[in-house]
Amino acid sequence: MKRIAIDMDDVLADITTRLIEITNERRNTNYQKEQLKDPVIFHEYYEEYKQIRACLYEKGMFRHLPVFEGAQEVVKKLQEHYEVFIVSAATEFPQSLTEKLEWLEEHFPTIGWQHTVFCGHKHMIKADYLIDDHEKNLVKFEGTPLLFDAPHNYHLEGYQRVYSWKEVEGLLLPQ
Amino acid sequence: MKRIAIDMDDVLADITTRLIEITNERRNTNYQKEQLKDPVIFHEYYEEYKQIRACLYEKGMFRHLPVFEGAQEVVKKLQEHYEVFIVSAATEFPQSLTEKLEWLEEHFPTIGWQHTVFCGHKHMIKADYLIDDHEKNLVKFEGTPLLFDAPHNYHLEGYQRVYSWKEVEGLLLPQ
Repeated sequence: MKRIAIDMDDVLADITTRLIEITNERRNTNYQKEQLKDPVIFHEYYEEYKQIRACLYEKGMFRHLPVFEGAQEVVKKLQEHYEVFIVSAATEFPQSLTEKLEWLEEHFPTIGWQHTVFCGHKHMIKADYLIDDHEKNLVKFEGTPLLFDAPHNYHLEGYQRVYSWKEVEGLLLPQ
Repeated sequence: MKRIAIDMDDVLADITTRLIEITNERRNTNYQKEQLKDPVIFHEYYEEYKQIRACLYEKGMFRHLPVFEGAQEVVKKLQEHYEVFIVSAATEFPQSLTEKLEWLEEHFPTIGWQHTVFCGHKHMIKADYLIDDHEKNLVKFEGTPLLFDAPHNYHLEGYQRVYSWKEVEGLLLPQ
């Protein structure tokens, strides 16, 4: 059975939407996620975001993030054909760990603690596919990397980009 | 650079000593670690231990465990020659995660969150060596497994057994 490693933030959990909300609240701005496809607006936003990035260490930050459309159904289907691990670079944020476990238990109860991985680097993960939004993780991955589209990776080239879980389904599951 | 994955409980952190203390306190017994080398005594102890195993889910359980003799010095030396990851099957115990991060930061500050992995299964970890006390982790490992001696694995055969960090040093570091 082939193995898929799936990132959490900005792949399963829509943290960007929450970070935009926090930026708008705390920096008195009015960004919308759709606007961030424009590189100029993205860079403006990113400067503001850097001022509030410390919120990633706040209690509750990771517990109530929205789930990406289709993620729950597709991950469940993937588990019928692949061994699925959730691999989250979470050890940078100590308070996030139990919140992420609870979030997974709520939204992806079929994963279980056995297939949950919290780490820093990901290059020691052996899998056939890695679905991730960050080049630093994809570039050292020895299997097939799939770049999950996100505002902060719009400039990345050379990776197969997926825009939605519907697209992941079409790519990795039998039709 | 070759890579070593190192387990935490009963390899870096002497959880067995703490579990014996808790067993003795709560079951009104008087076991000593040395005695558990005797299979008959070990089985008696293990029946008592099963009655208190739920303590693994208690707050504080993993924060103040003693460090195995020599572990700190040898791990630091290993880092000069290998890429060292700490890989702990910790996601079963949600409350353990931040405690384990704090414990590592206190006793192994050179590891860092980047090289800390909390997981369930370990068979997706790619490394050249795995130092672990549990067969379930060693048996599926594709590199060289090293069995760290512990009372609960006395019966295991077919693995290279190491009895101390001094021995790991002799085995993996240039003399």
